[in-house]
Amino acid sequence: ADVKKIAVIAGDGIGPEVVAEAEKVLKRTEEVFGYRFETGHALFGGIAIDEKGTPLPEETLTVCKNADAVLLGAVGGPKWDNNSKELRPETGLLGIRKALGLFSNLRPAVVFDCLKDASTLKPEVLEGTDLMVVRELTGGIYFGEKFRRESAQGEEAVDTCAYNVAEVERIVRQAFEIAQGRRKKLASVDKANVLETSRLWREVVNRVAPDYPDVELEHVLVDNCAMQLLRRPASFDVIVTENMFGDILSDEAAMLTGSIGMLASASLGEGSFGLYEPVHGSAPDIAGQGLANPIATILSLALMFRTTFGYAEGADAIEEAVANVLNAGHRTSDIAVDKSKAISTTEMGDLIVAAI
Amino acid sequence: ADVKKIAVIAGDGIGPEVVAEAEKVLKRTEEVFGYRFETGHALFGGIAIDEKGTPLPEETLTVCKNADAVLLGAVGGPKWDNNSKELRPETGLLGIRKALGLFSNLRPAVVFDCLKDASTLKPEVLEGTDLMVVRELTGGIYFGEKFRRESAQGEEAVDTCAYNVAEVERIVRQAFEIAQGRRKKLASVDKANVLETSRLWREVVNRVAPDYPDVELEHVLVDNCAMQLLRRPASFDVIVTENMFGDILSDEAAMLTGSIGMLASASLGEGSFGLYEPVHGSAPDIAGQGLANPIATILSLALMFRTTFGYAEGADAIEEAVANVLNAGHRTSDIAVDKSKAISTTEMGDLIVAAI
Ligand SMILES: CC(C)[C@H](C(=O)O)[C@@H](O)C(=O)O
Ligand SMILES: CC(C)[C@H](C(=O)O)[C@@H](O)C(=O)O
Repeated sequence: ADVKKIAVIAGDGIGPEVVAEAEKVLKRTEEVFGYRFETGHALFGGIAIDEKGTPLPEETLTVCKNADAVLLGAVGGPKWDNNSKELRPETGLLGIRKALGLFSNLRPAVVFDCLKDASTLKPEVLEGTDLMVVRELTGGIYFGEKFRRESAQGEEAVDTCAYNVAEVERIVRQAFEIAQGRRKKLASVDKANVLETSRLWREVVNRVAPDYPDVELEHVLVDNCAMQLLRRPASFDVIVTENMFGDILSDEAAMLTGSIGMLASASLGEGSFGLYEPVHGSAPDIAGQGLANPIATILSLALMFRTTFGYAEGADAIEEAVANVLNAGHRTSDIAVDKSKAISTTEMGDLIVAAI
Repeated sequence: ADVKKIAVIAGDGIGPEVVAEAEKVLKRTEEVFGYRFETGHALFGGIAIDEKGTPLPEETLTVCKNADAVLLGAVGGPKWDNNSKELRPETGLLGIRKALGLFSNLRPAVVFDCLKDASTLKPEVLEGTDLMVVRELTGGIYFGEKFRRESAQGEEAVDTCAYNVAEVERIVRQAFEIAQGRRKKLASVDKANVLETSRLWREVVNRVAPDYPDVELEHVLVDNCAMQLLRRPASFDVIVTENMFGDILSDEAAMLTGSIGMLASASLGEGSFGLYEPVHGSAPDIAGQGLANPIATILSLALMFRTTFGYAEGADAIEEAVANVLNAGHRTSDIAVDKSKAISTTEMGDLIVAAI
């Protein structure tokens, strides 16, 4: 097989621990399936601020741009929370998304059988929940002009939210295509009764919809969507929405599955390039103690195999290995009912490697 | 007693039905407590578009401005959904908020004992949930400049989100005061790691916080709040946030109680003036059939008594009457387990009147 280049960014908190387990899995798939990977490690986030004075060093961007895909652990922590804007991990995150053109964030929210009871939702409501939030990631109020000015009412802060037709169309078409590969239902979420950007969004959705006649489309207002996710989570298939709404709704959707420690995500641009990362954060409170659950990161690798490399066989094998290890009753402490029987980060990684 | 003037706006869909029952309750409190009310009816929303060609006629504003408080049923419906912006019910809603200076929207989310099982959340998670979302209502992206322009990428839409210090300070101080009268916990929700308006918001909160030393303050990012509402709803007391976040989070909070058909809300300005309305919408699908639940509107009246008029005795009496009728097992169809035993809108109103 040809060599695939992966930029590996461990990041902060539990990032290095979970990424280390994913790298073991990577190696194992080379042995079993004959894949060939070349990994390049790079500094990013808090650790990059500490060591290089910026959350997103030039070298890191170069490593990523030369790679076929990026695997990211997690970034951030209280240590950097009160830094000025340029010296915050989040600024690096927004910067890398923009620099790599990652305009689409896929956030699958599924319920793991063994974690059904971990959700705060009733099992009968959750039954069958398997949805994907497709979030626009490089536009909207996140990247619009921001400034302060004097007003008669004291200092005033301004954020600008802008979307153009091309930006909306590429993410919406992608969401329609994803829906075609799933249960063929798309909910487009906006606030068209108030926002001009939402009215443009809805116009574009309605204009391209006829190109996907097999997909059932509904428009849902964002406030209503926040409610419907709670009331009928299983009825959603693909949800597409703009950056800020996607931030809120994808986290709500992830939390309601009860499986947040297990969820993977992908950020994609044009072509097959992608950045893959667990949905959970850097969890500084448990960092360095071998308590972290590496499964979300390992499943992010499976998502990378399937989405960027087209390695369906390897992706299936990783996902099955995870399922088998869980079905055999092994749990890290975050998902263990009996915490005294919990296994460590590396034990979980080793078991999954052995199951491939 | 001096005469209190109430502007009554029935609105669309089930609005007229639920408001009629609240008016019966109003009359009953005159008999029992000697209050004196003068009501003035006004057209608003869809019906105003049909009859007057605008969702918010001048006369309606005048009736409201001459009143001490406004009781609103519900507005909107599919009939007007495809109208141009100026001829949509929502435009009237935004207009009346601005014209009456209603900068604060109080959305209590409580669990009614008899409806505990109606929530999709597990009862043990919901246990003790009693929170209040304080939403800024006349600023932010709802009221900022909106426009279209040509860009190299096709047409572009722009929304502007602005907040000044005075706007933030008045709502934040109000939220602190509300928290002082409750469990003394305040969660201020923003997206300070991305938005300039959120950074200003957080600065103001931190500056005024020392004036309320008895209130425990936490800052919560909006995406995290969407998750925490699901994970630990009972741990929240008062949540204060800007307009758009408040729209989303107050609906999420209402839905998780399972009691959305029963929740009241208040929109307040300077002084004691307020607009009171049920949280539920106009439900055009069941309008005119006597199926609507009038309780949220009747409880909105109780909120008006307590908040605008200082009529605690009357407010208590209404709330107790509602509790007694529910405890006796009476249900409208939306909350009935056995739908065949459901009572009508007017039957529910009559029972509550009789219980006062
Ligand atoms: C850290 C923050 C800037 C980021 C976002 O809001 O996009 C995070 O919440 C996420 O969802 O990846
Ligand atoms: C109808 C709409 C403009 C309104 C809002 O978003 O404020 C509604 O959702 C509400 O919460 O009262």
